[in-house]
Amino acid sequence: MCGIAAYYCRKNRDATQNVMLMLYAQQHRGQESCGIAAANGHKIRIHKAMGYVKEAFPQTILEELSSNAAIGHVRYPTRGEAAIENTQPYVIETLSGPIYAVASNGDIVNYEEIADELRVKGVHFASRNDGELLGRFIVYHHERKDMSIVDAIHLLMRRIKGAYSAVFLTHNTLYAFRDRGGFRPMLVGNIGEDIAVASESCALDILRPDSMREVAPGEVVVVTPHQVVYQHELDTKLLPENAKPVQPHHCIFELIYFARPDSYQFNEYVYEVRHKIGSRLASYDDDIGDVVVPVPDSANFIAMGYAMAKKIPFHLGLIRNHYVGRTFIRPDQYTRDESVRQKFNPLKDFFSNKRVILVDDSIVRGTTIRKLVRMVKGAGAREVHLRIGSPPVKHSCYYGIDTPNPNELIANNMEIEQIREYIGADSLKYLRIEDLRECVKTADNFCYACFNGNYPFPKLSTSSAIKKELPEEETS
Amino acid sequence: MCGIAAYYCRKNRDATQNVMLMLYAQQHRGQESCGIAAANGHKIRIHKAMGYVKEAFPQTILEELSSNAAIGHVRYPTRGEAAIENTQPYVIETLSGPIYAVASNGDIVNYEEIADELRVKGVHFASRNDGELLGRFIVYHHERKDMSIVDAIHLLMRRIKGAYSAVFLTHNTLYAFRDRGGFRPMLVGNIGEDIAVASESCALDILRPDSMREVAPGEVVVVTPHQVVYQHELDTKLLPENAKPVQPHHCIFELIYFARPDSYQFNEYVYEVRHKIGSRLASYDDDIGDVVVPVPDSANFIAMGYAMAKKIPFHLGLIRNHYVGRTFIRPDQYTRDESVRQKFNPLKDFFSNKRVILVDDSIVRGTTIRKLVRMVKGAGAREVHLRIGSPPVKHSCYYGIDTPNPNELIANNMEIEQIREYIGADSLKYLRIEDLRECVKTADNFCYACFNGNYPFPKLSTSSAIKKELPEEETS
Amino acid sequence: MCGIAAYYCRKNRDATQNVMLMLYAQQHRGQESCGIAAANGHKIRIHKAMGYVKEAFPQTILEELSSNAAIGHVRYPTRGEAAIENTQPYVIETLSGPIYAVASNGDIVNYEEIADELRVKGVHFASRNDGELLGRFIVYHHERKDMSIVDAIHLLMRRIKGAYSAVFLTHNTLYAFRDRGGFRPMLVGNIGEDIAVASESCALDILRPDSMREVAPGEVVVVTPHQVVYQHELDTKLLPENAKPVQPHHCIFELIYFARPDSYQFNEYVYEVRHKIGSRLASYDDDIGDVVVPVPDSANFIAMGYAMAKKIPFHLGLIRNHYVGRTFIRPDQYTRDESVRQKFNPLKDFFSNKRVILVDDSIVRGTTIRKLVRMVKGAGAREVHLRIGSPPVKHSCYYGIDTPNPNELIANNMEIEQIREYIGADSLKYLRIEDLRECVKTADNFCYACFNGNYPFPKLSTSSAIKKELPEEETS
Amino acid sequence: MCGIAAYYCRKNRDATQNVMLMLYAQQHRGQESCGIAAANGHKIRIHKAMGYVKEAFPQTILEELSSNAAIGHVRYPTRGEAAIENTQPYVIETLSGPIYAVASNGDIVNYEEIADELRVKGVHFASRNDGELLGRFIVYHHERKDMSIVDAIHLLMRRIKGAYSAVFLTHNTLYAFRDRGGFRPMLVGNIGEDIAVASESCALDILRPDSMREVAPGEVVVVTPHQVVYQHELDTKLLPENAKPVQPHHCIFELIYFARPDSYQFNEYVYEVRHKIGSRLASYDDDIGDVVVPVPDSANFIAMGYAMAKKIPFHLGLIRNHYVGRTFIRPDQYTRDESVRQKFNPLKDFFSNKRVILVDDSIVRGTTIRKLVRMVKGAGAREVHLRIGSPPVKHSCYYGIDTPNPNELIANNMEIEQIREYIGADSLKYLRIEDLRECVKTADNFCYACFNGNYPFPKLSTSSAIKKELPEEETS
Repeated sequence: MCGIAAYYCRKNRDATQNVMLMLYAQQHRGQESCGIAAANGHKIRIHKAMGYVKEAFPQTILEELSSNAAIGHVRYPTRGEAAIENTQPYVIETLSGPIYAVASNGDIVNYEEIADELRVKGVHFASRNDGELLGRFIVYHHERKDMSIVDAIHLLMRRIKGAYSAVFLTHNTLYAFRDRGGFRPMLVGNIGEDIAVASESCALDILRPDSMREVAPGEVVVVTPHQVVYQHELDTKLLPENAKPVQPHHCIFELIYFARPDSYQFNEYVYEVRHKIGSRLASYDDDIGDVVVPVPDSANFIAMGYAMAKKIPFHLGLIRNHYVGRTFIRPDQYTRDESVRQKFNPLKDFFSNKRVILVDDSIVRGTTIRKLVRMVKGAGAREVHLRIGSPPVKHSCYYGIDTPNPNELIANNMEIEQIREYIGADSLKYLRIEDLRECVKTADNFCYACFNGNYPFPKLSTSSAIKKELPEEETS
Repeated sequence: MCGIAAYYCRKNRDATQNVMLMLYAQQHRGQESCGIAAANGHKIRIHKAMGYVKEAFPQTILEELSSNAAIGHVRYPTRGEAAIENTQPYVIETLSGPIYAVASNGDIVNYEEIADELRVKGVHFASRNDGELLGRFIVYHHERKDMSIVDAIHLLMRRIKGAYSAVFLTHNTLYAFRDRGGFRPMLVGNIGEDIAVASESCALDILRPDSMREVAPGEVVVVTPHQVVYQHELDTKLLPENAKPVQPHHCIFELIYFARPDSYQFNEYVYEVRHKIGSRLASYDDDIGDVVVPVPDSANFIAMGYAMAKKIPFHLGLIRNHYVGRTFIRPDQYTRDESVRQKFNPLKDFFSNKRVILVDDSIVRGTTIRKLVRMVKGAGAREVHLRIGSPPVKHSCYYGIDTPNPNELIANNMEIEQIREYIGADSLKYLRIEDLRECVKTADNFCYACFNGNYPFPKLSTSSAIKKELPEEETS
Repeated sequence: MCGIAAYYCRKNRDATQNVMLMLYAQQHRGQESCGIAAANGHKIRIHKAMGYVKEAFPQTILEELSSNAAIGHVRYPTRGEAAIENTQPYVIETLSGPIYAVASNGDIVNYEEIADELRVKGVHFASRNDGELLGRFIVYHHERKDMSIVDAIHLLMRRIKGAYSAVFLTHNTLYAFRDRGGFRPMLVGNIGEDIAVASESCALDILRPDSMREVAPGEVVVVTPHQVVYQHELDTKLLPENAKPVQPHHCIFELIYFARPDSYQFNEYVYEVRHKIGSRLASYDDDIGDVVVPVPDSANFIAMGYAMAKKIPFHLGLIRNHYVGRTFIRPDQYTRDESVRQKFNPLKDFFSNKRVILVDDSIVRGTTIRKLVRMVKGAGAREVHLRIGSPPVKHSCYYGIDTPNPNELIANNMEIEQIREYIGADSLKYLRIEDLRECVKTADNFCYACFNGNYPFPKLSTSSAIKKELPEEETS
Repeated sequence: MCGIAAYYCRKNRDATQNVMLMLYAQQHRGQESCGIAAANGHKIRIHKAMGYVKEAFPQTILEELSSNAAIGHVRYPTRGEAAIENTQPYVIETLSGPIYAVASNGDIVNYEEIADELRVKGVHFASRNDGELLGRFIVYHHERKDMSIVDAIHLLMRRIKGAYSAVFLTHNTLYAFRDRGGFRPMLVGNIGEDIAVASESCALDILRPDSMREVAPGEVVVVTPHQVVYQHELDTKLLPENAKPVQPHHCIFELIYFARPDSYQFNEYVYEVRHKIGSRLASYDDDIGDVVVPVPDSANFIAMGYAMAKKIPFHLGLIRNHYVGRTFIRPDQYTRDESVRQKFNPLKDFFSNKRVILVDDSIVRGTTIRKLVRMVKGAGAREVHLRIGSPPVKHSCYYGIDTPNPNELIANNMEIEQIREYIGADSLKYLRIEDLRECVKTADNFCYACFNGNYPFPKLSTSSAIKKELPEEETS
């Protein structure tokens, strides 16, 4: 995952300050590190740090970085590579000075292919950062091939496969663009004469925008000192004659789990989708429970949807500790479920003799939910009926969500009844994929690959394989 | 506020690690700074840091501090004095080495009087820390007056006025004690042969204790390598003939707001008290609302109590950002309610045309709730009926809660109708104090001074005044 | 001032380690900051720090930077701008990665003119560092104008006026070059198949080279993985038909004061030149003294030359404290000559009733020598005869030595007899300029501008003025 | 080794600033770490750091520590224990606060015995620091035994064996004392009404004192706000009837090598003693050399003494690099004498065909001088005659100089002729011990143990052995 933000001031407002506020509102999209690159019309300065936005950007730093235009990034902790080198935004320096910065949310499928192409043309890579690849692709074609930046971005969209909602900054111009499939969300808002861009609407809300909308897949938003241009790839001269628009494939997991419930994403109110999911789950059951308890906070709205549909009480029976901080304790040496116990605690005497409908958004490995079911039973529950707000997760995501290898996914290794038994629940039901599709308005515009394995385009490890793949994709 | 924890190992478990876990579970009691003092049978080492427990105590530091007995503290941010010097535990060094450490939760009323008494006897104070006063009082009477530490603590209980739930550590012995009124909570638990002490039961829960109970007001728990002794002041030779036990005066605000809902405190389940409060509030109203929305997270359980009593839906209509971090942004320059907007966001389209029962636990200055009411109305609510889970706060607390000066308390300056108007709610109801008393089992054992001004003993600023006061208190 | 060093390995030796040793040997040329840029065949890494070489480059950093080719720099503290931004080497990043680094000793006279020329062509400057100007000039002409680096350097030599002994590094090639006047020293040495470059021979000595020689003014030394090329500008196609070689103008002050006495510079043994200077000074006097005492350490060899010529004892009567460290104490508040007293102390009872010949290398402002004369007299000297190893300093240096403004130079404001009186010496004699010329082999190849004002080319503050100047210089 | 300093202000001068200046003048006595403890009449604050005085005490820290009375310490790097814990001054905290600080130069012979005695009485030691032992001994007897501090110091002098020139500070009183043998130097000076104490007179010189003298062995100097008292142990009631003063045993090596040449120590001008040593060495030889060259800087004055006596030129033929900094490079991997070459470089062409009299102050292991002789021969010298300003070093020092184990001392393993051969000199002569005695005024007052093994009292490793020793020493 990850989150991005950008702000372009027309007058005297502070772009850096506003980007910081938007990153803060999107902190749930990444807590490992954060950064802001700020342009003042002449050059770009950058500040990046491990940890939370509010700690990384005290007022002194915000003032040093005050700017007309800025872009920012929060990074999600992924496999063992927590280091300042992997943080974004990424700044690209040329003889003209440090005048390009880029930040991206997503995952590039043909990274190696594109990087190799650029390497043979003499482009140097200092990291394995998606942002750097996008940035150097654009700068190479702009500076060495005399392409306009917009054209370079549209070429990028046709060449670079995968998910990227990205912002690109020069000393005085801001570009925001999204891959042709629109995997990851990105919105643009107007605040007076200013322009703001963010991964989620909750970030724009904090600035109380006059209006906002999604950046369309394949669209480039260009903000210069004088105008704002919205340029879709279909309008450009780069497109071959027979080009057809790509079917969007938005990430359905954003709506189920990742986005903040108060966000509006892919033209859906996130909390409403979750309510509907809860409602659908409720339709599978007769009156089997006394109380609906979510695994907080991610399943709160699914559980409320279930409770309202069934007219049985919703209750926060498990208390979650929010003060996690940046570092993590090693698995405790003497009890297996210690870390779950550190994060969740049941209300005392609350569960006694109750039939509990426990709701979670999804099951990945199954280890945490197993401990929670045990915890709820240990707290006295007579029955625990587990309801999951998504279909079984059987496939890895190649488009920006950090799912484990398929062989670690419990639904890949066990039948549902076996999972139920392993977890220790009295019953277990998953949302059916056809019901999930019913919960959104335009079901065909979403990617369900983690459930059904239908990848919009695959992650291939050899360049030859990718090359064979390319023509088909190119004409899709 | 603040939280304390202590752990004493009989065998090979790690006291420091367990104290860290308990502090982490009590992080809601203080996020400004934290610290642990660890005794290994020979000497005491200490580590303190600003910020969160999980960041301040990475595994390397826990291993360096591994110990048989340890005490810890989390500190609540109070008036402009965020500095490492004010952190606890406080270590007292003597010619014998650094062999005493102390940590306390509460507020001492006659600090100056006692400090002056010790100063004239040559005792030096390096801070204005309550913990240092308690510690030096004990060490002075132990080392210079040949008193046992238990006797010194019982003398302390009769001399030092105010609230203190404290732990005191020597190189091989742990003492836990609580002021005679029992203002602040403190529990002791048995984990096998080990002993754990914490401010809240949720902290003990994390260690899955065999049993736990409150430390009685005026009691000292002594844990040595060989035994555990529970020594109440009534049993000691220091007590005058005619001494009577003091009526407890537990802090009612712990149950309303401060404690974690999953804690068991003052012989009450915190969430149950809050449910009852919500129930009582519901009994004041007819059917006036479509949905009950809490100010999260502090009013969640009060709102659930109201919703269940009235059988109308409970809904988390306001989303709260938990990633606050350690530092705070200054009030924004161009909009007044920015900081509330940074912390809370309403669900879009949720409130449209609804009659909302908005529930909060209390009103102090009234500025935040005013902005929230405005935000809910701005989100489309037809009516906002504000219900408060406590009586009007009219008096400052001298016993450990950081309330502002009385002239900043809105209920001190306005009648309820004026407050309603100022806040912009369609109706406003506070919990009545007699109903609050009904929500707990032993109403007389609580302090309601912030509501009714009946202070168990006053905060006096001159020592002469305090001295006059003393005889009366002594015989109470 | 400042010092540079470079090393190119053919086999397995460590270039970074050797550059560090050479910088350490040249620490007297600059103590404010130091840095090394290291190339490993693929990219360039850099480490810079304030302070001493031995502190800035511990073994861990040397190992991280281990390389085939490296360049380094020590910086002299100049007017109030001690900051890491002003340190060298300077690294220039392009789309191809950070593959250029440059370090220079000297001072560029037409900095603004050249920088403006490049700026209008879109080249960005991040500092006001001479090294950055040289580097961007080369990279611009190489990358944007398709010039070879050697050609770019020769163009540079014809366009950029002033003093620069410089080293330039790509990922696998080292260039060393010197301005056409050869103001500042620079030598090249062979160590087996390796090549080393340094400002002074004492730095090469530490590596025990097989041979060494000066890099000629206007020459470029190119070291590639396969060969070493020595390319003089006269050989290049860039030179106009009528070009004549420039008369060298080496800095005479290097020999008088700046260089280490064990260095061989401008084809002179530094200590021998100083002996001759002492000898010449001795020839001005009859038998006027009992002992010759230098201001240590800079005048030691001049004083030994005087003492040997006159056959009177040389003695280190003033003890100097070498442990200065990086930071400086402010002028003390209650005594005027405190800082001189902190640095120098006279031997007790040594000077009693003696006629002292006190020798210094030069007088700039006159404040320090005045305090020293007073100190020697205060220690009991009967007479103090001051002898100065250079002519009166009347003009500022524009070519790399940090002399103050002309109006702060005492010899600009007073006659010699007035200076003697101000300083409090019993007699004062300066070396005559014609005698100074006799102390070196090729007197015409040196710059004496600080004594006689005959600048090889002037420092002009306006570009127009400089432009007028240029044609003349171009044909000189 | 090590150096100490103390300053006591009567009026408004800054004690901390002056202690810093004195430490700076004594930096040659210790470069590893430094510290200052400062008393302002109420409490003591301390600042310690690794490295040089001028870096450790910038003006901001000096201002924070501004004080009426202060003590300081510079520490010499000894065997592998460079750590902030071993730095001095040492502060001792009691219930009364941190109001004692101590700093010492020397080495305690019966450390374990005394520490054990105090440990059984409950005194805790946090380090193995001599200063801590002295401090806790005094504080224990003062606070627990109701002894005056002066009496405690005199008891200390009779109980603690070895070398210690020490300063002890309370919140408003300064004590300076020296062991009864007076091994290490210490002087006291008057600056107006202020009192300064230092290890060497060159440190007092920097403050231009009105007068100065040695603190006598066994004397305590007490400076209170109202008076200065000089109290010799012979005057105290603690002395047994039959006590006789102890014969002083000043360290002769201070005069040969360790002290700065401009210091006045043990009633001798250091440079004069070194001149006499050079003179004596000259008397051993006929006319065997063309030039006298010292190993700089330690043998400069011995070499000047030789040159003046023989009337042959003195010359600084070896140049020493003073910019060593705090850290040290490991022995280079490919040449054995690299580190000597880093530190010393011969003048080029200077030694050609010369007969060189090379002078050093002493030989310890012989490895460095061997490389220097080789270097001088490699530079062309026809003959190298090595002259050593002290007798052969055959025994370790237990009184504060960090000599290696006896089996590492070359003079312990070889005859002089063998040493000459090993070193490669054409001749080798040491100063004879009887001649060394002639170079000082009161030869019997010095310790020559490192030459002749006559230890004033031995270093014993078992307490029983020490206990047997004690009665004899007590009556000596």
